[in-house]
Amino acid sequence: MRRAVFTSLGLAFAVAAAAIGPSNRDKPPTSAQVLESAQPTDWRRPDPADTLYLELPGGRVVIELARRFAPEHAANIGTLAREKFFDGLPIGRVQDNYVTQWGDIDEVRKTETATRKLPDETVIAWNKSLPIVKLPDADGYAAETGWLDGFPVGIERKPSGQLWMTHCYGTVGVARGNWPDNGSGSELYMVIGQAPRHLDRNIVLVGRVLRGMELLSSLPRGSDAMGVYADNEKPNRTLIRGARLASELPAAERTALEILRTDTPLFTKYLESRRNRREEWFLRPAGHIDVCNVPIPVRDIK
Amino acid sequence: MRRAVFTSLGLAFAVAAAAIGPSNRDKPPTSAQVLESAQPTDWRRPDPADTLYLELPGGRVVIELARRFAPEHAANIGTLAREKFFDGLPIGRVQDNYVTQWGDIDEVRKTETATRKLPDETVIAWNKSLPIVKLPDADGYAAETGWLDGFPVGIERKPSGQLWMTHCYGTVGVARGNWPDNGSGSELYMVIGQAPRHLDRNIVLVGRVLRGMELLSSLPRGSDAMGVYADNEKPNRTLIRGARLASELPAAERTALEILRTDTPLFTKYLESRRNRREEWFLRPAGHIDVCNVPIPVRDIK
Repeated sequence: MRRAVFTSLGLAFAVAAAAIGPSNRDKPPTSAQVLESAQPTDWRRPDPADTLYLELPGGRVVIELARRFAPEHAANIGTLAREKFFDGLPIGRVQDNYVTQWGDIDEVRKTETATRKLPDETVIAWNKSLPIVKLPDADGYAAETGWLDGFPVGIERKPSGQLWMTHCYGTVGVARGNWPDNGSGSELYMVIGQAPRHLDRNIVLVGRVLRGMELLSSLPRGSDAMGVYADNEKPNRTLIRGARLASELPAAERTALEILRTDTPLFTKYLESRRNRREEWFLRPAGHIDVCNVPIPVRDIK
Repeated sequence: MRRAVFTSLGLAFAVAAAAIGPSNRDKPPTSAQVLESAQPTDWRRPDPADTLYLELPGGRVVIELARRFAPEHAANIGTLAREKFFDGLPIGRVQDNYVTQWGDIDEVRKTETATRKLPDETVIAWNKSLPIVKLPDADGYAAETGWLDGFPVGIERKPSGQLWMTHCYGTVGVARGNWPDNGSGSELYMVIGQAPRHLDRNIVLVGRVLRGMELLSSLPRGSDAMGVYADNEKPNRTLIRGARLASELPAAERTALEILRTDTPLFTKYLESRRNRREEWFLRPAGHIDVCNVPIPVRDIK
């Protein structure tokens, strides 16, 4: 009984696939079954030059930077990491059902090589040659959604011709002041709640957390407005031990991960297994999936 | 600069409303401005008989039970609370971006007056006389959405004629095994991530957390499958000190809260202020809002 409760409410790909007996032959596969059938080519390895490690007392957060979407911000974050800019800075804001935020938007003026002002990278131009994987399901916030380079995206072909990364759980963005300040990457946030899609196209997104999301989402919430830690909470704030690009570390110190590719026939099957859950526990498949309700599997390289 | 970053990314109703100068006269109000204009009748007080307090070492979680949606489950949870069933039981599962789960689905057999087996309360019958507040914005998971008694709902008038509470951040549900077991209310969960709307109509929902959500969402994640705490984590699990209906406590020990009513013209204005954010920080109003992206304000009664 207990097992049934726990396994059934969970993510299918973490569950051992059920044996497929004769009665199940015509049943569409579950997520676990789809993933079990994946070939090595269905997985990809993130580029170490686009992988940022945020070292916290509780462990390492692995962030994949989205260079296609925000090249100047991603590059500036790399520069800040090389300068050890983030080392010792606090996680200063944890707002429940919203964001965890770290770094320091003001302190960046003290750095020498990183850039204080960056161009607008809230959107990129859509064009038909981009290798976008479309999600056919309707979305309220964007005309179309899908994935590009493994990142969830919104698309508005007309009139704006814009494409942008969507705010989902685990998405990483760049804190900014009021327009036209775009932020510099010296203060970043991760979404820790319901996808705040109203932020889409309002702020620059630079990537998503691949591993260690819980190190940012399970922190004590700040009790001042907006989840900022109050003065009496500041002595207990989590401090960043360091932030480094994977490419700057020896191979032995890197976290070896691979990510399910989104541009494969297998991913289409995986999407369907999430859209209509076929695990025994479910009474009624939803018949729909939101771009932010598709967890993209990440696994250790053995 | 820092202030701008923090206030602008946050929830508007926690920010002091900007002064409305001549140049702002024709601008639609922000959420903060809408809430400042609220009258006492725009707020309601939850019924103490439908208010469950979950007492944790970190403080009190206040849950509003949804008697219209799941009357037998709500009543059974009340019985379990009166029997002190939950006292000393652990929070046994915390799965990142999914659910925090507490109680014990098996232990309920040891109770005398609570009921082990309950009827299906995953949906109720829609009818046109229900005081539903419609959300005009499109939804992918349900034909229509809105609020009933202050709880977010999905609606399918045809063919099923069903109405159900939707899984949003902070929604509380009843763990169950495989169908036709509906659970008893002896083990409950709260959503702590992206709305898992694929669970809608698959499991009985009994309410939502009004206050203290962060006491459940900021707990360490369990490292076994499905976020269950592993054996070595069990000694550090959070134990429930007690669970009581507010109506069973003296008035002085109750948490005095009121909730923004959803069935008022003011709420319609509030919705618009969330659909199209007018705070200075925003570049581009979204023009859309999802039923799970509308935080229903809760405040202390002064």
